[in-house]
Amino acid sequence: MKFELTILGSNSALPKVNRFSTAQILNISEQLFLIDCGEGTQIQLRRYKIKFSKINHIFISHLHGDHIYGLPGLISTFNLLGRKKSLHIYCHSSFENILSMFLNSIERHLNYEIIYHYTDTKDKKLIFENKIVTVEAFPLKHKLTTTGFLFKEKQQLPTLRKDKLEFYNVPIALRKAIKEGNDFITKDSKIIPNREFTKEKKRPRSYAFCSDTQYSPKTAEYVKNVDLLYHEATFLEDMKTRAKETMHSTAKDAATVAKQANVKTLLLGHYSSRYNFTKKHIAEAKEIFENVYAVEDGFKFTVDIK
Amino acid sequence: MKFELTILGSNSALPKVNRFSTAQILNISEQLFLIDCGEGTQIQLRRYKIKFSKINHIFISHLHGDHIYGLPGLISTFNLLGRKKSLHIYCHSSFENILSMFLNSIERHLNYEIIYHYTDTKDKKLIFENKIVTVEAFPLKHKLTTTGFLFKEKQQLPTLRKDKLEFYNVPIALRKAIKEGNDFITKDSKIIPNREFTKEKKRPRSYAFCSDTQYSPKTAEYVKNVDLLYHEATFLEDMKTRAKETMHSTAKDAATVAKQANVKTLLLGHYSSRYNFTKKHIAEAKEIFENVYAVEDGFKFTVDIK
Repeated sequence: MKFELTILGSNSALPKVNRFSTAQILNISEQLFLIDCGEGTQIQLRRYKIKFSKINHIFISHLHGDHIYGLPGLISTFNLLGRKKSLHIYCHSSFENILSMFLNSIERHLNYEIIYHYTDTKDKKLIFENKIVTVEAFPLKHKLTTTGFLFKEKQQLPTLRKDKLEFYNVPIALRKAIKEGNDFITKDSKIIPNREFTKEKKRPRSYAFCSDTQYSPKTAEYVKNVDLLYHEATFLEDMKTRAKETMHSTAKDAATVAKQANVKTLLLGHYSSRYNFTKKHIAEAKEIFENVYAVEDGFKFTVDIK
Repeated sequence: MKFELTILGSNSALPKVNRFSTAQILNISEQLFLIDCGEGTQIQLRRYKIKFSKINHIFISHLHGDHIYGLPGLISTFNLLGRKKSLHIYCHSSFENILSMFLNSIERHLNYEIIYHYTDTKDKKLIFENKIVTVEAFPLKHKLTTTGFLFKEKQQLPTLRKDKLEFYNVPIALRKAIKEGNDFITKDSKIIPNREFTKEKKRPRSYAFCSDTQYSPKTAEYVKNVDLLYHEATFLEDMKTRAKETMHSTAKDAATVAKQANVKTLLLGHYSSRYNFTKKHIAEAKEIFENVYAVEDGFKFTVDIK
C-alpha cells in the first residue's frame, strides 16, 4: 500500500523556472489526490509522469491565484484526453460560481461532470471518505478563508495467517468474521482466540497540508500526531514582520507547530521567491524540530507502514 | 534597432514538459509585444530572461484556453511586482467581461489599469500604432473567431551624413527639415539636393502571426511580402482530414501560404502533441517553400535590417 507525496510546486506567489506554484499529489494505494493547483500543474504532472486518469479528487485550500490558476488548463486537458469520469473539487463555496462561469465561457462543453464539495468550516470537518481514507478540512489563519487538509488512512482489517486457518480447518464462510475480530469455535467447542489467526494490524498513516497560514497553536491541535506535516515557511525569522503582515509563516513557526503537534516528519515549502536556497530554512527549523526537509519541485516522500 | 521574435510556447492544446502552449515575444527596439499567453507564459518569460516591465501590450488571437490561460497568473504577477503602468490587451470584444469577472473575483485589487482594445474585424484593421510600429488584425479561419496579427515597422526618417552637414555648414535649426526630405539652400542661393545629406533609408521590417487557422488563400493576401511569417502547422498531410475537422493546418498548408504570400522566412509551430520531432514538418514544407524553420520553445529569430 503506497502512501507517497510528490511536490509539484514549492514556491509561493511568484513562480520560478525550477519552482512552480503550489500543487502536490498524494498517492494512497494508487488513488491520487491533487492538493492545490497552481499555474503549470498539468506540465508538472507530465514532468513527474503522473497519470491524469488517476486524478479524481482535487482539494483547493484557498482562492489565491497561485493555488488555483492551473485548474482551467487541467480541466481542459482532462476533456481533450477523453475524460468521462466525474471530477470532484473540494473548495470554498464561493469558488463554484467563479470557476464554472469562467469555464462555461471558454471551454463551453466538457464531456464529464465537475462536482463541487464545500470545505467551509470553523472546525475540523469530514469532506471525503472511502474505503481506505478519510479527508478532513480544518481552518488555517490567512488573508482570506483558507483550509488545511488532513488525509488519514483508515484502519484496515488484519491479514489472516494461512497456516493457522489450515491447521484449525476454518471453513471459508467463517474467514470474514475472523478478519473482523471474532474468535473461532472448533467442532469440539474449543475457543481459538482471534489473535491466533491475525497478523499484526497495519498502522494507518496520515498527512496534513497547511498552506497558506500564519502561525497558530490551533493548527497543532488539528494535525496532532500526524506522520507527515507540510507546513508553509514562506519566510525566515528575520522577516517575521513581513510574515505577520502577509499572514504567512517562518521556518521557525512551521517547526513550532510540528513540535507542538508531535508529528513524525515536517516538510517546509511555499518559499518566497527571494530565496534561491533553503539551507537557512532547514537550519532555523532544526533548532526546534529535528526531522525536517525543505521540499523542492519533484521531491517525493513515502510514509512507511511501520 | 532590434526586431526579434522569441518563441515561449510551440505546442498546441496539450502542453508538454519542453513545449508549452502558444506564447511569443516580439521585441521591436526594446518595445515588447506579447502574442498569445498560454499557461505558464510567466514561467517562460523568466526562463528566457525577458523583462516583465517591458511588456505593455498583449495580443490575443482567440479564446481557446491554450492561448489565454497564462493571463490570470501573468496579470497577478505584474501586480505583485509593483506594476503601475496600464496594460493593454488586444482581444475579441467578448473577452473583456470574461476575464475581468474572473480577475475581480480572484485578484480583487490591481494597482494598475487594464485597457481592452477589440480586435473584432472582417478585414484588415489597424489596432495599434506608435512612432515606430503599426499592428493590424486580420481574420483567420478557425472554430471560433480568430485573428492574425501583422506587425510592421514604420519607415523611419533617414540618418544624416555628418560630413556633408559640416561641409555645407548647415545650421542646426534646419537639420530636421533636411531629415524630412527638404533640400538645402546655401547663403549664395545654391540648391544642394536632399540626397546629398542622407544615408540610405532603413527598410521597415514586418512579422505576421497566424495561429490557429485552417488553410485559406485569403491569409496569403493579408501577409503579402512580410519578412517573417509564423503559420501554425498542427498536423502533417497524412492527417489532413483531422486538420480540416479541427480547422487547423498542415505543414504543407503553411508552406503554401508562405509561397503565395512571397514571404522571406516561414516559421512552423503549434504542433499536435502526438509529434515529438519536427523533421517531417520541415521536409513537408520544404517541398513547397525552402526557407522554413520549425520552432521550439526558446527559439529566437532576428529579422535583419538589410
